[in-house]
Amino acid sequence: MATNEMDKKDNSKVIRDEIRRGKWKKTTAGLCSDYVQANLVILPKEIATDFMVFCYRNPKPCPIIDITEVGSPVPKLAAPDADLRFDIPRYNIYRDGNLIEETDNIKEYWQDDFVSFLIGCSFTFEKALVNNNIPMRHIEDKKIVPMYITNIPCIPSSFFHGPIVASMRPIFYNKVVRSVQITTNYPSVHGAPIHIGNPELIGIKDIHKPDFGQDVRIEKEEIPVFWACGVTPQAVAMESKPRIMITHTPGHMFITNLKNNSFAIM
Amino acid sequence: MATNEMDKKDNSKVIRDEIRRGKWKKTTAGLCSDYVQANLVILPKEIATDFMVFCYRNPKPCPIIDITEVGSPVPKLAAPDADLRFDIPRYNIYRDGNLIEETDNIKEYWQDDFVSFLIGCSFTFEKALVNNNIPMRHIEDKKIVPMYITNIPCIPSSFFHGPIVASMRPIFYNKVVRSVQITTNYPSVHGAPIHIGNPELIGIKDIHKPDFGQDVRIEKEEIPVFWACGVTPQAVAMESKPRIMITHTPGHMFITNLKNNSFAIM
Repeated sequence: MATNEMDKKDNSKVIRDEIRRGKWKKTTAGLCSDYVQANLVILPKEIATDFMVFCYRNPKPCPIIDITEVGSPVPKLAAPDADLRFDIPRYNIYRDGNLIEETDNIKEYWQDDFVSFLIGCSFTFEKALVNNNIPMRHIEDKKIVPMYITNIPCIPSSFFHGPIVASMRPIFYNKVVRSVQITTNYPSVHGAPIHIGNPELIGIKDIHKPDFGQDVRIEKEEIPVFWACGVTPQAVAMESKPRIMITHTPGHMFITNLKNNSFAIM
Repeated sequence: MATNEMDKKDNSKVIRDEIRRGKWKKTTAGLCSDYVQANLVILPKEIATDFMVFCYRNPKPCPIIDITEVGSPVPKLAAPDADLRFDIPRYNIYRDGNLIEETDNIKEYWQDDFVSFLIGCSFTFEKALVNNNIPMRHIEDKKIVPMYITNIPCIPSSFFHGPIVASMRPIFYNKVVRSVQITTNYPSVHGAPIHIGNPELIGIKDIHKPDFGQDVRIEKEEIPVFWACGVTPQAVAMESKPRIMITHTPGHMFITNLKNNSFAIM
């Protein structure tokens, strides 16, 4: 049965299949916009429990959407027909805290003791913001949202420690309060902002030099608003240096079968 | 029956009685802190209906708590044992848009066609903020909160028009988002802020020269946060120039029998 271009882009299974066959290698921003997308963290079982503790202690940057069973690449709650080894357009491989490779599948790296974590992604609340007439600069300019390593420490677990990474969106000044209210309604996808205004107060020296993603324009009447970001585990990996940790490449997310609207608490 | 000092201060009827007898002439900030305090607007019947329309169109600065019947000084919902001619420590008398007198009762000004409006006051949400470990500078320094005539226009009614007056509280930067969430929960007492950060964007040229109330210190790591204020009708009176309008004097509120907690929507 034929599906047209529109259907394909709005169907999470169809687009995951394209990704699996290597036909979509770009950012997943704007794809399947009704569906929850997720950040990925894969770790060996020996430190996966400690990472669970870390996520529990840091729910704003690391809200867990799904966890796989040991050795299984299948996220049973989020997308039981998916395979996390192939269904993301781009992966980052970290060894001992260093990004050693970017790759479009992780078949060669897979281990039988791997546990995969899916972590909520800001795409969900961005959809809610746009639906409330709060435009997203990086979407309009077809960029990956700028992300910054802040001076705000995560609460450490036994093994994991490091700074919170924050994504930034410039918001017109008279819509800042509304943006707080809307994102408060989505605690499982980072929730309310962690900071409003002056970037220096959270340790960002140059707002136009993000650590991940791409720089965006900030107009005079816009306020930079910062949300905790699911790329935090990658900054944490750099500091904590697990022997191996696999993540998505920022902006290249896992598309789940879950609907964005189901993540609003009210 | 004797009441000790503590009981007196926490009992709205007792303190209203002291005010009625001219024994309390100062600001009501900090008095009966569990009880809702209210802004007052008194107008002749001929333009009271138009003021109701104005309040309906501007619920953030003018959330109505109670309205009296024509000619009655008794707010039946908010405090059926009170008399609005005597039970406020200080009143402002406006004639044709000019503040002509401040007085401690309005017996001589009373008219049989007066309608009184009680409008929500920020004291209610301030209590909630303090309970969430967000201190209020003006309370700590025993001042009346600074208030500013902004460049944000109210939505006019047939007769009434004018700018929104905003009160300002300096909030430590990492508590600004929480302050938005807490006050969102109190829509009947001005609700969420109307502005965060740069005062110039809402037409405030010198933050240290408020139009009402008193200047407060702002530390380097604090952000000025602005809420719509129940003094707005006084700025509106100055512009709209009703023949007579009686209000409270800023900071000198009407203490109701209603509990602050009952105004939280969640």
